[in-house]
Amino acid sequence: MSFSWAKMFFGRPLANREAEETKLGVFTGIPAMGLDGLGSASYGPEAALAILAVAGAAGLGHVGPIIWVILGLLAILFLSYRQTIAAYPNNGGSYVVAKENLGTGAGLAAAAALMVDYVLNVAVGISAGVGALTSAIPSLHGYTLLLCLGILVAITLVNLRGTKESGMAWSVPTYAFVGSLGFIVAWGSWKAFMGDGHPEPVIAPPAMSQEAGEAVTLWLLLRAFASGCTAMTGVEAVSNGVSAFREPTVKHAHQTLAAICAILGLLLLGIGYLAQSYSLMAMDQTKAGYQSVLSQLVGAVYGNGWFYYVAIGSVLCVLCLSANTSFVGFPRLCRLVAADGFLPRPFAVPGRRLVFSVGILFLSASAAALLIAFGGITDRLIPLFAVGAFLSFTLSQTGMAVHWRRALREGGGNRGHLAINGIGAFVTAIALAVILVAKFEEGAWLTVLIMPLTVLLLRYVRRYYDGVDRQVLQGSHREIDLRGPGHSVAIVPIKRWDRLTRRAVQYALRITPHVTAINVTQLEGPDSVSRDAQLTDEWRNLVEEPAKRAGIEPPRLLIVKSEFRSVVAPLLRVIQDLDCASPGCQITVVLPELVDGRWWGYLMHTNRERRLRARILRHGGLRVAIVSVPWQLQESDPAQAIAEEEEGEAPASGNPARS
Amino acid sequence: MSFSWAKMFFGRPLANREAEETKLGVFTGIPAMGLDGLGSASYGPEAALAILAVAGAAGLGHVGPIIWVILGLLAILFLSYRQTIAAYPNNGGSYVVAKENLGTGAGLAAAAALMVDYVLNVAVGISAGVGALTSAIPSLHGYTLLLCLGILVAITLVNLRGTKESGMAWSVPTYAFVGSLGFIVAWGSWKAFMGDGHPEPVIAPPAMSQEAGEAVTLWLLLRAFASGCTAMTGVEAVSNGVSAFREPTVKHAHQTLAAICAILGLLLLGIGYLAQSYSLMAMDQTKAGYQSVLSQLVGAVYGNGWFYYVAIGSVLCVLCLSANTSFVGFPRLCRLVAADGFLPRPFAVPGRRLVFSVGILFLSASAAALLIAFGGITDRLIPLFAVGAFLSFTLSQTGMAVHWRRALREGGGNRGHLAINGIGAFVTAIALAVILVAKFEEGAWLTVLIMPLTVLLLRYVRRYYDGVDRQVLQGSHREIDLRGPGHSVAIVPIKRWDRLTRRAVQYALRITPHVTAINVTQLEGPDSVSRDAQLTDEWRNLVEEPAKRAGIEPPRLLIVKSEFRSVVAPLLRVIQDLDCASPGCQITVVLPELVDGRWWGYLMHTNRERRLRARILRHGGLRVAIVSVPWQLQESDPAQAIAEEEEGEAPASGNPARS
Repeated sequence: MSFSWAKMFFGRPLANREAEETKLGVFTGIPAMGLDGLGSASYGPEAALAILAVAGAAGLGHVGPIIWVILGLLAILFLSYRQTIAAYPNNGGSYVVAKENLGTGAGLAAAAALMVDYVLNVAVGISAGVGALTSAIPSLHGYTLLLCLGILVAITLVNLRGTKESGMAWSVPTYAFVGSLGFIVAWGSWKAFMGDGHPEPVIAPPAMSQEAGEAVTLWLLLRAFASGCTAMTGVEAVSNGVSAFREPTVKHAHQTLAAICAILGLLLLGIGYLAQSYSLMAMDQTKAGYQSVLSQLVGAVYGNGWFYYVAIGSVLCVLCLSANTSFVGFPRLCRLVAADGFLPRPFAVPGRRLVFSVGILFLSASAAALLIAFGGITDRLIPLFAVGAFLSFTLSQTGMAVHWRRALREGGGNRGHLAINGIGAFVTAIALAVILVAKFEEGAWLTVLIMPLTVLLLRYVRRYYDGVDRQVLQGSHREIDLRGPGHSVAIVPIKRWDRLTRRAVQYALRITPHVTAINVTQLEGPDSVSRDAQLTDEWRNLVEEPAKRAGIEPPRLLIVKSEFRSVVAPLLRVIQDLDCASPGCQITVVLPELVDGRWWGYLMHTNRERRLRARILRHGGLRVAIVSVPWQLQESDPAQAIAEEEEGEAPASGNPARS
Repeated sequence: MSFSWAKMFFGRPLANREAEETKLGVFTGIPAMGLDGLGSASYGPEAALAILAVAGAAGLGHVGPIIWVILGLLAILFLSYRQTIAAYPNNGGSYVVAKENLGTGAGLAAAAALMVDYVLNVAVGISAGVGALTSAIPSLHGYTLLLCLGILVAITLVNLRGTKESGMAWSVPTYAFVGSLGFIVAWGSWKAFMGDGHPEPVIAPPAMSQEAGEAVTLWLLLRAFASGCTAMTGVEAVSNGVSAFREPTVKHAHQTLAAICAILGLLLLGIGYLAQSYSLMAMDQTKAGYQSVLSQLVGAVYGNGWFYYVAIGSVLCVLCLSANTSFVGFPRLCRLVAADGFLPRPFAVPGRRLVFSVGILFLSASAAALLIAFGGITDRLIPLFAVGAFLSFTLSQTGMAVHWRRALREGGGNRGHLAINGIGAFVTAIALAVILVAKFEEGAWLTVLIMPLTVLLLRYVRRYYDGVDRQVLQGSHREIDLRGPGHSVAIVPIKRWDRLTRRAVQYALRITPHVTAINVTQLEGPDSVSRDAQLTDEWRNLVEEPAKRAGIEPPRLLIVKSEFRSVVAPLLRVIQDLDCASPGCQITVVLPELVDGRWWGYLMHTNRERRLRARILRHGGLRVAIVSVPWQLQESDPAQAIAEEEEGEAPASGNPARS
């Protein structure tokens, strides 16, 4: 098998039977799906602290309760998604759950919310990671957009190779992140415990401003909670991507979900506790000397040695790579939606590596467009982002609650399940309301606008396919018509007499005795006159005379002047003029086609046949069929072509096409 | 006729018979072809003065002789191109003259030199114009590249409408330029004459530095001459574009050439004379307060009133539009070269407005690439530019000299003609040598590298077409083969049973009794099993049973599992396996094709038939023909389609295709 760029970039084509081997276990599942969730441990607490900062030290006192509420919510989400996975082991995503239990409208709303969310997550995730990177290494600042796009391309390529490949590739930064932050949290907590809750920091965090600050109001706490909730986006990823796990699917999904939630919960808890113990506060990002809460924390607990760089480096990697979660979820979601006819069909076609390449590329292109439009700095998109996540949480929880109620009514199911999903639905709905209100002005209103539009688009796509099906399925259940055509005519557009033309005319004569060749003269002049005369001559000697001798109807040669140099127009006119109104009448246009397989071959020819075919297919009506009679300029080895599409080597003895 | 973007942008399609009306007279010929030549009056003298500036006042004294040498050269060029036009009234460009008299190699060298030159002229001309504009209005400086590209797009669009349209569009700035500069030169000369050669300037030009400066060496004078020669690029344009003039071609071309040379000569003479009289010197462009020589001149002669702005505004316009000359010459040159098979054929196809659109677009794209690569500032390309012009001058003059000598030998011709072109060849060759030496380090070496590469590329293209002709013409002069195929088989790749599939199978049955339908199952699973079962059922009831009843061979249905999801590979395998080795054997692949005419229709389908056709045409060999059986999703009105390609209104009574 020869060298192939596709093979180098994406690996060899995978067979269907290899599907199971491309699926995720727990070890690869955590990096592939969990990066979004885990990464949010690094910005969720900071987001809440940033809101509380305006209240000074009094604000910091409230971070504990807020973290506890968030942890409670996380626990509810864990339990209810755990149930969802068990109940819908094949693709129990919010889309399917909402669609099956609440109706198509709710399903599409969930799908739209998730899609928008996945796209935003890629743009926001990468740009947050690069933002953290450039604030650590300011000399990179001029390359923000370039870095963003570079990381996007890398994630896209890895995911086009396969979901498992992405899990393998990102496992090092993921487990380095978990390990180093886990160590800091554990050691810091130990020191805090030994120091009666007031440990001595190795490097003192910046002193908190001692001004009294604003009063702590309920509104402030709600906003802090809403911001902290960003820590929970990404938790739904496992349930949306159950199909990515290998058998036993449910077990692997459960373990992955549990691992992600447990790690995330412990990190949140630890960071919240240590922030209070060490009196860490979120600093103003726009001011010089900014340090993230995590950076302050690592400094306070450990100091500034090499481990500091490992820990902060892994945080940066995880932030940059949190987009990967979208690359697992988005293509699978789109595949389900496309299979139901709400998205164009190419979204449902598995590519050479058994991933849904069109979805991956679409996600990548949309995120690239956002990144370019915002110059790589997407802070303003963050508010849009939690809304989608919590809308899909709520819809999926409500769907599950309906599911259990129905099961109960039908005699199965149990009340515990209903209770958990019911509470989940209730709590996430409240969180959604809080987020919507708290973030409405900051941009959440845009989500409220975009999602219905997305739903409309999805419905429009479905209407399109329904229309197509109505046309081509209606009345197809009649027996096939075995009568020959009432009248059959072949038209061969030619340019000159050569072997290719000869073959096309011969082909036409084999399907009908009524053959007309058309030569369209596009420009007048002495050259064109002599060319026409030569063609007429050749036609008489090489076609008409032999046909007359053989006693068959001699094929006609029509030389048409085209004042407007159009070849399509005279041809359509000839087709219209043919007396072909009877239902069985059949017109076949035979196109002699030179085929050049090299990529630049297209540039060397006027490609008139391609345009002719497209226009005549479009305007010729149902009576006209179009035949391409090829002449390959290069010999081709079909065995090689087959081998390129499938695994394995080309057989040693080629079977050249030119026989 | 309905609204059409193409019509709005480019105008209605033109008929061949309208060709004469699209051609140039003298009035439109001067703006269309002369902008490059005339525009150089504004930078040629300045370029020479800039070199002489290092010698201070002593340098200025030499500008007169240099201008006279340049004028002498211009006169020789005028006379010899005049003869060339008369001798080659149909496209007497350097390419044709050199090819016919010096051989193909020289012709291609001339063509390559001209092509490179035309592209450079567009980039350099526009960027020089924009440079002058932004130095006049510094607030535009940030938009340099955008302005360059905007002007490029405007010139491209106008030229796609037609050459005459460009002549009309640019006639206002051209004649404003000629009128206002002519007035300044005339009035200034009168004042200089009345003031005994030392007139009082209205606004004194910046005082010349009184330092002695460098000595005036021969090398300095040669370099000044070489720089001043840039004033002559563009003079060859008329002879390269004779075909653009209307009948009597030679007369119109002669008059246009004479007008351009006369205006250019008078302007050069006047500017040279006035530069000395008013002691104007080129200023350093990179320093603040820079004023071009022309701006100083207008200020000195007239002062700063509104007329100053008209004059300088028209200079800016002419500079920006000097690229238009390339847009007239390049596509016509490429057309001639393509007609000889040295460039891809699309270059020889006249577009809807009877201009060679591919050449125009190629020129525009190349120039845009240069502009973008250099950020809109192309000063460094200027040295490359005179080399090409003078190489093509020399080749065309030499070619004409050979032409006359042969004519003399054959008894015709006259010695005067030979003398003029001989002197032209000699002088331009010397100028070429001077330019090459003087500008070698500044970048002329690059031209020496690029041109041979271009010639190689042209020869490679010709070799390609020769190869194609060898393949398809060889042995085509045998009588047509009227025997039917030894064996004929049809293969129909289907996806499901619908009306389209039905029609495809019916078509296949009309051309051969041996029909096999293939359904490729791309993914396994319960869905696919039930779909296959349904299809098998439908096939049996709707196809096989009726065929058996009718006593004909029942079409087979083959369901193939494709482990690698490729549809091409199993199909190619089936084609290979068909026992079809006999010379008359014919395989026809019948593709049922859904046709959606809307631009986004492509996105809604997997377009598997397109890919199938391309791959099978490439790898199927000569025995395989491919039929498209269409199903148009929208009704089409062929009369409308014809009308869109040709002038005139669609007939009131449409003739819908779905009959």
